Amino acid sequence: MTASSTSCLVHCFDNGLVLLAEPLPWLSSVGFDIAIPAGAAFDPEDRQGLASLTTDMVLRGAGPRDARAFLEDLENLGVVWSESVGHRFIHLSAAMRPKHLRDALAIFSDVLRKPRLPQEDLESARQGLIQTIQAEEDDPEHQLNKALRYRFLPYPWSRSPHGVIDHVAAISWQEVAEFVERHFQPSGVVIGVAGRFNWDELVTWVGELLGDWKGSPPPAPETRWPTERQAHVPFDSQQTHIGVAYRSIPYEDDHYFLARAAAGMLGSGSSSRLFMELRERRGLCYAVGANYVVIRGFGGVICYVGTTSERAEESLEVLLEQLQNLGEGVTKDELDRAKAQLKSGIVFLQESSAARAHTLTQDWSLLGRVRSMQEIKEAVDSLSTEEVNQFLRDNPPRDFTVVTVGPRPVEVPSELLQP
Amino acid sequence: MTASSTSCLVHCFDNGLVLLAEPLPWLSSVGFDIAIPAGAAFDPEDRQGLASLTTDMVLRGAGPRDARAFLEDLENLGVVWSESVGHRFIHLSAAMRPKHLRDALAIFSDVLRKPRLPQEDLESARQGLIQTIQAEEDDPEHQLNKALRYRFLPYPWSRSPHGVIDHVAAISWQEVAEFVERHFQPSGVVIGVAGRFNWDELVTWVGELLGDWKGSPPPAPETRWPTERQAHVPFDSQQTHIGVAYRSIPYEDDHYFLARAAAGMLGSGSSSRLFMELRERRGLCYAVGANYVVIRGFGGVICYVGTTSERAEESLEVLLEQLQNLGEGVTKDELDRAKAQLKSGIVFLQESSAARAHTLTQDWSLLGRVRSMQEIKEAVDSLSTEEVNQFLRDNPPRDFTVVTVGPRPVEVPSELLQP
Repeated sequence: MTASSTSCLVHCFDNGLVLLAEPLPWLSSVGFDIAIPAGAAFDPEDRQGLASLTTDMVLRGAGPRDARAFLEDLENLGVVWSESVGHRFIHLSAAMRPKHLRDALAIFSDVLRKPRLPQEDLESARQGLIQTIQAEEDDPEHQLNKALRYRFLPYPWSRSPHGVIDHVAAISWQEVAEFVERHFQPSGVVIGVAGRFNWDELVTWVGELLGDWKGSPPPAPETRWPTERQAHVPFDSQQTHIGVAYRSIPYEDDHYFLARAAAGMLGSGSSSRLFMELRERRGLCYAVGANYVVIRGFGGVICYVGTTSERAEESLEVLLEQLQNLGEGVTKDELDRAKAQLKSGIVFLQESSAARAHTLTQDWSLLGRVRSMQEIKEAVDSLSTEEVNQFLRDNPPRDFTVVTVGPRPVEVPSELLQP
Repeated sequence: MTASSTSCLVHCFDNGLVLLAEPLPWLSSVGFDIAIPAGAAFDPEDRQGLASLTTDMVLRGAGPRDARAFLEDLENLGVVWSESVGHRFIHLSAAMRPKHLRDALAIFSDVLRKPRLPQEDLESARQGLIQTIQAEEDDPEHQLNKALRYRFLPYPWSRSPHGVIDHVAAISWQEVAEFVERHFQPSGVVIGVAGRFNWDELVTWVGELLGDWKGSPPPAPETRWPTERQAHVPFDSQQTHIGVAYRSIPYEDDHYFLARAAAGMLGSGSSSRLFMELRERRGLCYAVGANYVVIRGFGGVICYVGTTSERAEESLEVLLEQLQNLGEGVTKDELDRAKAQLKSGIVFLQESSAARAHTLTQDWSLLGRVRSMQEIKEAVDSLSTEEVNQFLRDNPPRDFTVVTVGPRPVEVPSELLQP
């Protein structure tokens, strides 16, 4: 069987755990993504970094395995895996040959239910996290991203998941253990599986491993909107990094693909407006682009320009002009290219078990269901220039958040900020 | 048809151009990689950056297309593509739906044969490259990699492909045009294709597009070995970045997979010796690992540690101890894990048309043939602890190149450097 459209299979266990799976039987691998509702948004105000430190600690041995046996057993199975700490979820992601799926699920089930949290490893984990934060401080692009998100996204989604050094330094083992106790709970865990597998076996395995686990985590924290929309972060360099963000519509909105296509025409790929105007035509910058960001109930576009300090004002001005122009509409040629890009993305998604597994859990957490690849393809195919331009008239880019990182502040043209 | 072993197809055209292709018919995409013998090793001594600037310029329109039409046509086809400048080759890589393969090949054939090199774009391209180099100067990991390679690899393979700002500032349009004239020649171009395609069609298309092109590029430049093996690069930060490199054996050597597995046990993955000892057990660093690097006739291992300045001496000492210990041999358990890792890598390679296309051209340039996935699998399966340990006795890590980047020099234990 070769790549074609398939649908997602869903099993909701009595304890609230959700198993999602999409067969990609043309592949010879299988991937899974376990989303645990224990992300950095749950960090207490004065313990930012707790979810990240906890993630490191739960991966230092679980059930019958100490830290070394855990790592060695996964490598013996040839499992390629990684962890990441998002705002709502901790993600444990893995890809492997199908014959090792059950064993890999068993190892990670122990991480969920029986992490050892070895007290003697806490200092080592803490030092690793502190050093990671320090290394980020050396990276101006990271500084930009952090400062921009803080002023753009709803708090606490706007915080840096790795946390704050002073907070990390103060976290006790007891606090880690309590965080696991509170947030590692089956009601709220979503497991996405994609690739080559047998559905009946999979449901049986997950049921055996996790079906008798009980408990519910607390709901997502209340959010509040940032009030400040401009900032400059001093950084000793010849370069200046500029970020401009504006609100768009959420992933669950019917018009999502209109908004997503519009953002693509603005800043995704090398025929996008930002790339053509700032880089190719004017040579203002070495890096430029725009990304769509989604969290539950919220969507936005973040634009980035990396340039020299001398060209910073002009770069920002041209960027803001392009954002204003976008509100006046796009052409059919531009839309056709954006559609071709989005449809290519679907083809590549069909060929990566790990990437598709991740989009399954992401869809579930944002929508409460999974958008099939066929549904996405049809939504993209049906986009028309008229609809996109109506959308852009109704939702022109505006109310910009502007952050710069570099040797000196960049003057922001006020008439462009407040049209 | 699902993933299984296949063989590589080869067609050598009369003009010296080589077409390699491997069917991965379970995929619904196809990828190609065009290797042009015009990499940064060919940059004149006082024009370092010429290959990089040329690469930017040839992508600004070719044949019937100006820069904008070139970018737009590729996006209309949904082609995901990128360019990269290596030492021996410039690589143009692309992935797409199979129905667009011919059109994409036609567009890139024009880049090879008929680049427009618009004079009015030279300044914009130059500024972009200079800014890229400046941004790299802000990145301490990049600084480490650059300084280490300069003292480890044979010159001019040891230079930074992006070049030197003063050199880039001086490059004339005439020099770009002459570089294209000299190095963009069919004898020496290798095109790798992997994924879903029809071989007979492919040979016909490439023959029509490139078969009547004539010419030969100059041979690879002479190399010379660096003499200095230690350096410290000052960088204002709380972090210190440490690189240690030593020679191993080339890709074409019969013992390559022994050496590669040994390097994996040393520093690839989270049950490797470096990760376990420096990060998990002692909490000395936030990042640690080892990579195998190959160029024609040369193989080596580059180890990296990112740590705080206070822990730099201890980190370096433990790293060098681990390198010495490796010479005393490995266990069967370690080898089994390394083999499982390497074999997983083969499975994932079967699922990425773009990645496999790149390994086809790389194999050809290093070996003059392609190692099939079956051959790699058998070579990995047959590795024994006895062989690996004999290899390590004969080739223990030694004669280390050591470079550090951070706020102050790191003391290097001389007895460890010269055992």
